[in-house]
This record gives sequence, C-alpha cells and structure tokens, in this order.
Amino acid sequence: MTADPSQSSATGRPIGDLMRALGVAARAAEPVLAFAPTEQKNRALLAAADALIERRGAILEANERDCREADRHALSAALRDRLRLDQTRLEAVAEGLRAVAALDDPIGTVLAAWRRPNGLLIERRRVPLGVVGVIYESRPNVTADAGALCLKSGNPSILRGGSESLHSNTAIHACLVTGLETAGLPASGIQLVPTADRTAVGHLLADMVEFVDVIVPRGGKGLIARVQNEARVPVIGHLEGICHVYVDAAADLEMAKRIVVNSKMRRTGICGAAETLLVDRRGAATMLGPLVAALLEAGCEVRGDAETLGVDPRVTFASDADWHAEYLDAIIAVRVVDGVDAAIAHIARYGSQHTDSIVTGDPQAAERFLARVDSAIVLHNASTQFADGGEFGMGAEIGISTDKFHARGPVGVEQLTSYKYLVRGTGQVRR
Amino acid sequence: MTADPSQSSATGRPIGDLMRALGVAARAAEPVLAFAPTEQKNRALLAAADALIERRGAILEANERDCREADRHALSAALRDRLRLDQTRLEAVAEGLRAVAALDDPIGTVLAAWRRPNGLLIERRRVPLGVVGVIYESRPNVTADAGALCLKSGNPSILRGGSESLHSNTAIHACLVTGLETAGLPASGIQLVPTADRTAVGHLLADMVEFVDVIVPRGGKGLIARVQNEARVPVIGHLEGICHVYVDAAADLEMAKRIVVNSKMRRTGICGAAETLLVDRRGAATMLGPLVAALLEAGCEVRGDAETLGVDPRVTFASDADWHAEYLDAIIAVRVVDGVDAAIAHIARYGSQHTDSIVTGDPQAAERFLARVDSAIVLHNASTQFADGGEFGMGAEIGISTDKFHARGPVGVEQLTSYKYLVRGTGQVRR
Repeated sequence: MTADPSQSSATGRPIGDLMRALGVAARAAEPVLAFAPTEQKNRALLAAADALIERRGAILEANERDCREADRHALSAALRDRLRLDQTRLEAVAEGLRAVAALDDPIGTVLAAWRRPNGLLIERRRVPLGVVGVIYESRPNVTADAGALCLKSGNPSILRGGSESLHSNTAIHACLVTGLETAGLPASGIQLVPTADRTAVGHLLADMVEFVDVIVPRGGKGLIARVQNEARVPVIGHLEGICHVYVDAAADLEMAKRIVVNSKMRRTGICGAAETLLVDRRGAATMLGPLVAALLEAGCEVRGDAETLGVDPRVTFASDADWHAEYLDAIIAVRVVDGVDAAIAHIARYGSQHTDSIVTGDPQAAERFLARVDSAIVLHNASTQFADGGEFGMGAEIGISTDKFHARGPVGVEQLTSYKYLVRGTGQVRR
Repeated sequence: MTADPSQSSATGRPIGDLMRALGVAARAAEPVLAFAPTEQKNRALLAAADALIERRGAILEANERDCREADRHALSAALRDRLRLDQTRLEAVAEGLRAVAALDDPIGTVLAAWRRPNGLLIERRRVPLGVVGVIYESRPNVTADAGALCLKSGNPSILRGGSESLHSNTAIHACLVTGLETAGLPASGIQLVPTADRTAVGHLLADMVEFVDVIVPRGGKGLIARVQNEARVPVIGHLEGICHVYVDAAADLEMAKRIVVNSKMRRTGICGAAETLLVDRRGAATMLGPLVAALLEAGCEVRGDAETLGVDPRVTFASDADWHAEYLDAIIAVRVVDGVDAAIAHIARYGSQHTDSIVTGDPQAAERFLARVDSAIVLHNASTQFADGGEFGMGAEIGISTDKFHARGPVGVEQLTSYKYLVRGTGQVRR
C-alpha cells in the first residue's frame, strides 16, 4: 500500500527483488487457483465487477490523474483516447468481468478419453497453464480483462500495464483484489507490478523463468519486438494485422462495398481492420470504381496501383511499402490482381497471417481462398472486423495470436490452458 | 551427392549458406505437403519402408562404418548400443513407417464448428505447424520416425542427427527421399543436414527464424539445455524424466511389487523409467521389505532413507542428490512418506513433471494423486513405462513433452499441428 504507486521503486527496494517477490507469491497462489471451484472463481469476478461500479468515483479520479500527466507529456491523441475512462467505459469494463464469469469453466474438462486393448483407461484433462505475465500498453481496461481471463482459466497473473496508466490500473486492480478476497481466494492470484520503473519488463521477460510460464504481450510493434527478443519463456505472440479483403469477379457489388467499407472504416485502429483491398481484374471494370468511391465517401484515403489511380483523381500512388503497411488509420491500399490465386499469392507475400476475407458468389473460389490463405482467420463474405474473441462467441479475449504454436487466433480462456493425461489401470505392467 | 557426407562442409561452402538453402527448400515444400492428400503421404511412407528393406545391406554397411568410428573414438557402451542397427532393428524401423502410414491423417480435421446468432458459421480446422527442425543424438531410427511423423502431419522437416551416426542417417534418409519421389512429393519435404559440422545446430536454432517454425530436440540433458538456451524459435521441450511410483498403504502388495519392478527395470534407459519409490508410512511395516527385496532380486541397486536402510544391509544411504537423480540405470531411490499428500509434495519438489504413478486400492487417494500431481502423465495402478505414444494408441511419437505450452506428454502427429478458423458469411458486417 503506497500513496503513490509510481514511487514504489523509490522505496529503496531493488526492482529485481520486487519482481521476484511477485513471482514467489504467484507460484504460491497457483495450486489454489488451479483447484478453485468454478463458483468460487465466478464469485470473485462478480464481486470485482461490483467493486468497480461502487468505486467509480475513485477510479475516474485516478484516471483523470493519468490523463493530466499524459497531457503534460504531450502524448499522442490516439494514446490519450486509449487511456481515458468515463462512466460508460467503466460500466463496459464491469460488464466484461460479468461476461467472463458467465463463460464455461475450461478447467477439468475431459478433452478425450479412450480405453486401450490392455484395459488402461486414458483421459486427457484440461488444466491451467501456470503463471501468466501480461505486458500491455495504455488501455486500463486490459487490467480487468486479462486478470479475469487468467483467473477464470485457473492461472495466477502478473500484470504490467503501461506506466502512463499506472494510477488507473492500480485503482482497477484493487477492485480485482477485493473480488478475490470476497471469494476467499488469495490476493496474489492477480498481481499488478506496482511501479512505473521500466526495467520491470526486462525482469518479467528474462529473469523470472522459474516463476513465469508464459508471457502475453498486448500492444504495438515496439512492445512485441522487445518481447520476442528478450523473452526467455514461451510467448503467445500477437504480431501486426495486415488484413486483406479480396473482391472476386463473382462478388455481389453491394455486398462487396458494405464489407470493404466496414472492414476498413468501422474502427481503423484495431488489428482486424483491413489495410489492403485486392480486386479481381475480371471484375475491375464494373467494381473497382464503385469500391474506391465508397471508400472515399466514407472518408478513407485511397492509395492504389496504376489501374486504381485511373478511377479517381483523389487516389494517390501506392508504393511497395503500402502493401506492407499496417496503417491503423483511415488509409487503404488498393491493387488489381489476376484472380483468387494471385490474391492468395499477394497475401502470402505481404500479409501477417492474421485475418483475410474473400467476397465472392463462387463457392469454389471461396473454398480455395479459405483453405490456401495461411492466416489465423479466413472469412468468406464477412467483414475482417469480426476478428475478435467476443464475436467468435469465446467471450473476452486477451488478444489475437498470429503464431501457429500453442494458440492461434483469438486467445480466450481455453487458449490459456494446457492438459494432462490421467491413466487408470488395474495393475498393468508393460511387456 | 557426396561420397563421404561428413566432408560436405569441406567443399568450401559456408555452413550458414548450406543451412539457409535447406530452409529455402523446406519452405518451398511447405504448401505441397500441407495440401498433399492422405493417400499420397501414405504412399511415400510405404515406399520408404520398402526401400529400407530392399537396401538393408547398404544401410547396415553404413551403420557398420559409424560403429567402427565409434569404437575408434571409444564412445560409451550405451551410446554404441543406441547407434547399432541390425536386421531386426531395421525391420522395426520399416514397420514404424508403415505404422505411421496407418495412422489417421490429422490434417483437415474439423476440430469444432458453431454458428453465431448473426449467421456466421465458424469452423476450427487442423493445419500443419510448418517447418520442423529435429535435433537428435545417436539413434539412427529417429531419422525415419521423425521424418515420417512430420510428413504425415504435413510438415517439412530438417533433420539433424548425431554426427556419430551420419552414415547410417544418410542411408536411411535416402530411403525416405525415394518414398517422397515415388509418391510424387518434393524430395525437400524431408531433409537431412548433410554434414557432421557441429555449427549446423547453432544455425538451425538461431539463424533461420524465417525458415524454421518449431524445434524438436530429442536427446540428453546437454542437448536440451543447449536448445533451450540458443533457440530463437518455439521448442517442443523434453526435459528429463524423474518418474516416481508411490505405494499407498491401501495397495495390493503383489501388484505393487509387479508395478515397481516393471517401472524401474523393464528398460532403465528410457525417460519413463521410475527413478524414485515412495512408500506410505502406514504400509511400510508390511510392504517396504518385500518391495526392496523384489528390486534387489531384479538386480537393482537400492539407495534409501533411514527406514529403508533398516530393511536390508545391501541398501545404501540416499542423499538429497538421489531425490533429484535421473539415473537411467538399475538404481532406485526409496523413501518413506506420510501418505498421499506427502508423496504429492515430494514429487512437486523433486519431480520433472513427466510421469508418476500411484499404487492403491483406495479410489479417493488415487483421484487425489491423479488430480494433484502436476505431471504430463499420472497413472493409477499401472507402470510408469507406459509413458509412450505407442502405448497411448497415438502411433509413433517424436518424444514426450514436459512443457505445458502447445504439447504435453507424448508428441505424435496431432501435436505437430496447429489450426485455423474458417468463417463463412452471407455479407455480414460488424456493428
């Protein structure tokens, strides 16, 4: 308990010792959380949600403090928007906790069971992964989301939010601790790194191998690159989302316009936002113009190849860098390609294996695209903005993994688990 | 084609370039293998098995050459045994390839499918992991096993066997290539690092991030430690097997003797061999003596705590190091513990999360042990030597993972896969 949590590293305690203490406490909580009944975990989540609403005044005050500092340090408008909480956003955070409580408990589920000819009964049962380190940037809601998902999946968590949101995170974290204590669970089940000291991240990544089982980074390219370089424990990665919409010649133009504009413009700052539009050459004469017009009308800047430049004077020239770009802004790159195989080849070369969509009425082209595009999520006749654990019905998510190892796509409670084999015999020995 | 493959790094081609060329070729084979029909992959495996039998003379000759060099370098008897092939072992290798062909193809399986309220149909489909680097020690049969498992799961492989078995591996690998070519698949689907140059391992681990998706090490502690230190790509780890048998007071003594002796002595050199026997204090008076006698009679050296020392003069004193030991030999450490919870605590402290067994007639003690021992495999009334993918009915295995991340326990074809989401819509956009 420190009056100003950003000062806790100034108490004289070396940061490495502080971080190790968090690790020891997390390991101590591990078996308690692993075997906590579903009802107890849910009680903690619901009590935390109640605490968030009850203490909204104090939380918004803490957030106001973070926002004032952000103003003083002239942080970007986008960052300040991610940082800011208000009554509505805070209610959504509490609602998120209740939604995680409502999810099925993944722990203890029998994933498969079979009997061997020698009579052995083998069962694969879902168990927690272990201690999860979550490293994230300015959004204070991640404190609640990540802590809740780890708790529901039976994993102790060590949360390290952006230093610019430390007061907000501390206030939200206190509600999570209240929830744990109300339910009779150890407070060290969800811990927040209580300092703005940036060296804490290095300790979490590389010096705590015996205390941390997996790292989940959630943030921009710089954070991800640092995590992938420094981490000495497994990482559930989340690279950029260079998402494509391919409009096939057999597409319905009205549907294509709707999907392209939604994929790009519904929210431009999320990883599932489309960054490149590919248009089938066979359909370009009738569709390229209307698609570009719809994007421009929606307020999107359009950068295009030679064909696209020809349809509207407002289109600017797209260089090779544009096909590689994750704009996260109201900008799109547009290119004409020779059919579905050329679209697949473009995506293989420039994409980030995140989310890509085909718009077509041709089932063969759709199946080819679905099978051959090597991305976590591949859609047919739907917006790329559906790349989201909630939209998949998985409940809240801690991110979208672009790795193939362990977890791919939305990372929800099931992706934060492992499994073990239970083998029941009657005295069998091996020949 | 080099007359002496151990000399290929002496051709003047830098080893880094050689390794990158393997990586480029593996990536080129990736989509072909990923979409190869089951029947085509199986044809390659069966043709490779045939080639192994047809060329047994040449393979045994190559193996003889490796064995002569091993003699000259005075390698250990255990290593020379692992290295040696004979007619029977070679037939078992061919049979292993046929067994992999007989396995269900994991690729393309729909793991789950559900429809969302907005009409989107979401499907999770199994896909290959990507390029697999396998680093192993002296057993030449791993060349065939690992190459076959990767092929069946649609993954190109880069195999790096022990330098002491290079001639054997090269001869076996040639049969795998014959299989691929017979089936019309690219020869680069299964590649063997064609040089004994030890720097090749470093390149595979750290310099080929864009060409290698996962590393599977298979070998002793030194290899595993090197891989975990140097790897820049995900690793399916396989630490040591410090496996325990706990004999509860409610055990049937005859069953306990049979399971303990089999767990320790059936084969002492495998990772699922028991290294420590824990005996419930409440049953020690009647069971400790007969258990120790059975072990001694089977030719096992027994090291014990104070109680165990008292039952037979041949028992020697077990120090703390013995509870940590993976003997892989006819030696066992024996300790009396205070019931199932003390056994669980001992295993948590000294075990390696590999395989542990309880012998008891008490179903409550059994369930507590099964749930609370945090190991990949936990058995009740069965030998720890069942820790094996084949014994689990999973077909051949590439190892036993002691990690919780991605794959735990036996690593067979399913564990060499990932998944992707296919989402089918009718024009849905996100609100």
